[in-house]
Amino acid sequence: MENGSSSSSSVPSTPLLKDELDIVIPTIRNLDFLEMWRPFFQPYHLIIIQDGDPSKIIRVPDGFDYELYNRNDINRILGSKASCISFKDSACRCFGYMISKKKYIFTIDDDCFVAKDPSGKEINALEQHIKNLVSPSTPFFFNTLYDPYREGADFVRGYPFSLREGVPTAVSHGLWLNIPDYDAPTQLVKPLERNTRYVDAVLTVPKGTLFPMCGMNLAFDREVIGPAMYFGLMGDGQPIGRYDDMWAGWCMKVICDHLGFGVKTGLPYIWHSKASNPFVNLKKEYKGIYWQEELIPFFQTVTLPKECTTVQKCYLELSKQVKAKLGKVDDYFNKLTDAMVTWIEAWDELNPSVNAGTAAAGKPNGSAK
Amino acid sequence: MENGSSSSSSVPSTPLLKDELDIVIPTIRNLDFLEMWRPFFQPYHLIIIQDGDPSKIIRVPDGFDYELYNRNDINRILGSKASCISFKDSACRCFGYMISKKKYIFTIDDDCFVAKDPSGKEINALEQHIKNLVSPSTPFFFNTLYDPYREGADFVRGYPFSLREGVPTAVSHGLWLNIPDYDAPTQLVKPLERNTRYVDAVLTVPKGTLFPMCGMNLAFDREVIGPAMYFGLMGDGQPIGRYDDMWAGWCMKVICDHLGFGVKTGLPYIWHSKASNPFVNLKKEYKGIYWQEELIPFFQTVTLPKECTTVQKCYLELSKQVKAKLGKVDDYFNKLTDAMVTWIEAWDELNPSVNAGTAAAGKPNGSAK
Repeated sequence: MENGSSSSSSVPSTPLLKDELDIVIPTIRNLDFLEMWRPFFQPYHLIIIQDGDPSKIIRVPDGFDYELYNRNDINRILGSKASCISFKDSACRCFGYMISKKKYIFTIDDDCFVAKDPSGKEINALEQHIKNLVSPSTPFFFNTLYDPYREGADFVRGYPFSLREGVPTAVSHGLWLNIPDYDAPTQLVKPLERNTRYVDAVLTVPKGTLFPMCGMNLAFDREVIGPAMYFGLMGDGQPIGRYDDMWAGWCMKVICDHLGFGVKTGLPYIWHSKASNPFVNLKKEYKGIYWQEELIPFFQTVTLPKECTTVQKCYLELSKQVKAKLGKVDDYFNKLTDAMVTWIEAWDELNPSVNAGTAAAGKPNGSAK
Repeated sequence: MENGSSSSSSVPSTPLLKDELDIVIPTIRNLDFLEMWRPFFQPYHLIIIQDGDPSKIIRVPDGFDYELYNRNDINRILGSKASCISFKDSACRCFGYMISKKKYIFTIDDDCFVAKDPSGKEINALEQHIKNLVSPSTPFFFNTLYDPYREGADFVRGYPFSLREGVPTAVSHGLWLNIPDYDAPTQLVKPLERNTRYVDAVLTVPKGTLFPMCGMNLAFDREVIGPAMYFGLMGDGQPIGRYDDMWAGWCMKVICDHLGFGVKTGLPYIWHSKASNPFVNLKKEYKGIYWQEELIPFFQTVTLPKECTTVQKCYLELSKQVKAKLGKVDDYFNKLTDAMVTWIEAWDELNPSVNAGTAAAGKPNGSAK
C-alpha cells in the first residue's frame, strides 16, 4: 500500500498520494524557495496564488508542475463573489483550496525551508503531513505517549478500548524551527528568541479545546473539512491582518468537534527563515489582540445543532451565530459573516459534486474527485 | 531564588524544595534501586510504604533519610479507617500521601531507574517534576509550542493574552522509557515493544480532557490536590487491580477542572526496567477493562456544583455521584464510595490544619505545614 511505504528514507521512491494532493502557495515574489523543496515537492502539483500587483511576473523554478492565479484570475473566475477573497494578505491562499480538485491540500509560506531533524536528516514535511492525515485522530481521550498509531507507540494502560479506532483526521498542523510564530508584542519583547527544540511528537488536539492554527505549514483533507478553511477578510481595505489562519482554525475546530473529525498538531517541522517586521505586524494585529478576548469565549461555548450534518451547513450556521454574537464587537464581523456566506456559495459553485456528497460525522467521503 | 537555579547541571548544588517534598515509595522488596537515585534523592525525605507481609525486613541503602510504614503501622495509625488503604497492591502508596506533612509529593515505583536524555545525560526526574509544579499550567487553550513557560518557548500568535498568566499546577505526570505502561492485552500482543522515543515536551492536559494517569513516576502538590489522590481499593480482597492510579487520575482531573488547577504530562522520563507479567496483569485488569467503558463516560460528563469549593467537598460530592451512577455497574463501586468517604475522614484526621485551609479555586494555600 502506498501510504505505508518509505518510512525510513527522506525522499520516497513513490511519492505518497501524488495525484491526490495539491500544494497551495500564496506569494508576492519569485519562488526560489522551491529549489530547496525540489526533491520533495516536484512530483506534486502546485497551486500558486499571486497576491498584490497582477501585472508582476512571478518566476517559478523550472520543472515544477503548477497553475498560477493572480487577482485578475480570481475576479474573472468568481465574479462578484471574489469579494470574499482577501487582497494584499496571504489569506488569499484559500482561493487555492477552493479551486483545487484534489482530496488533500498542503499549504506552505514562501519563507519556509527544509528543516533538519536532530540526526541532521532533512525533514520531508509533506510526507509527515500525509502520514498524519491518513491515520486516525483521538480527540476524546488523551494518550500520554502521544500519537498511538505511530511506530513504536500505542495506547497506554487505561485508554478505553472502545475509543482506540479513532476518528478520521481532518487537519495536520505542523510547526516551525528557528523563527517561532509569535505575535507582534512577543516579537518586540523577545526579538532574539529562536525555536531550537525539536519535539518528536504528533498529538490530537482534544475535543472541546481550541488552539492557534498557523497557516505557514498546514495540511488538510479538503473533502472532509475544505469549506471550513476560509481565511476570512484580511489585508487591503480591512481593519485587521494576521488573524486569517486563527479565524480558520477556530471555525474549523468547532466544526470538527461537532462532526467528529480529528485535528493533529506537532510534526513536521519546517525551517522558518525570517521574522516579519514586528512594527508592521503590530499595526495589523492590534485589533485582533483585543477582539480575540471576546472571540475565544464565543468559540469555546458555541454549539451547533444536530441538523448541521455537513461542513457547509455547519459553516453557515456558525456565520449566523457570529453575526448575532460578535456583530456588536465591531461592524467588521457583520462584513465577515457576509463574506463567510459568499465563500460557501463560491465553494459550492466550484465544487458541485463535493457539495452534494460532503461527509457527515464519522463518514467522510471516499475519494470522489 | 531556589526554584530558578541549576537548570544546566543534573545534580543541583542546592536541592530544590528540599524541605517541602517527600518521596513516597511503595515496595515489597529491598530498595537497592535507590543506589542509582542517590545523587538525586539523598537530600530528600523518603516515606516507604511496605506492602504485604509486615514481618519482612526491607533493607534501605545507608544514608537515606526515611520513615517506613508496614501494614501494622497503617492499622495502628488509622484504626478502623485503615480499611480504605489497599493491601497487596501498590495502591497502598496513598497512605504516604496522607501521612506526609510536606507541600509536595513525588512517588516512584521501585522498578524505575534513572533514564538518559538523547545527549546521554542522566535525567534528574525530581528536578523536572518540581519545575513542572512550580510553574503555571494552561488548561483553557492549547499552546502549539507546548509549555510556554519553558526556556526558549512562549505563547504563540493567537493565544489570548488574558490566559497567559495560567493557573496553579496541581499534578506533574512523568513518562517512561524502555517498558511502556501498557495494559495486559497490549503487553500480550506486543511483548517486545519498547519506548525509545524521547519527546522533549511538557504540556497541560486541557480542561475537560481525561487522560490515563500512571502512578509510576508522578508528582503533585498535596496542599492543592492531595485529598483527591486516593488510589482506591485494589489488590487483596478486591475484584480489580492496576486501576488505582487510573481511578485517582479521573477523580483528580475532574476536580482540578472544577477548581481551576492544572495537570501537566510529558517530561521527566524514568527508565522502567521490567515488564510485569501480562497474565497476572490480565487477571487483575479484566474487570477494569470493561468497567472503564462505563466509568469514562461518567467522568467525562460529571459536573460538580458551585458549592464544592474545596478538594474535600468535591471528593465527597464525587463519591455520592459515583454511588448513584456506578453502583449499578457492580457492587464494588458501592464499597469503593464508602472507602472514598473513609479516606477523606482519615485525611482530615491526619491533616487538621490543611483541612481547615484547603485552597479554593485559583487560590492555593501558601505553605502551611
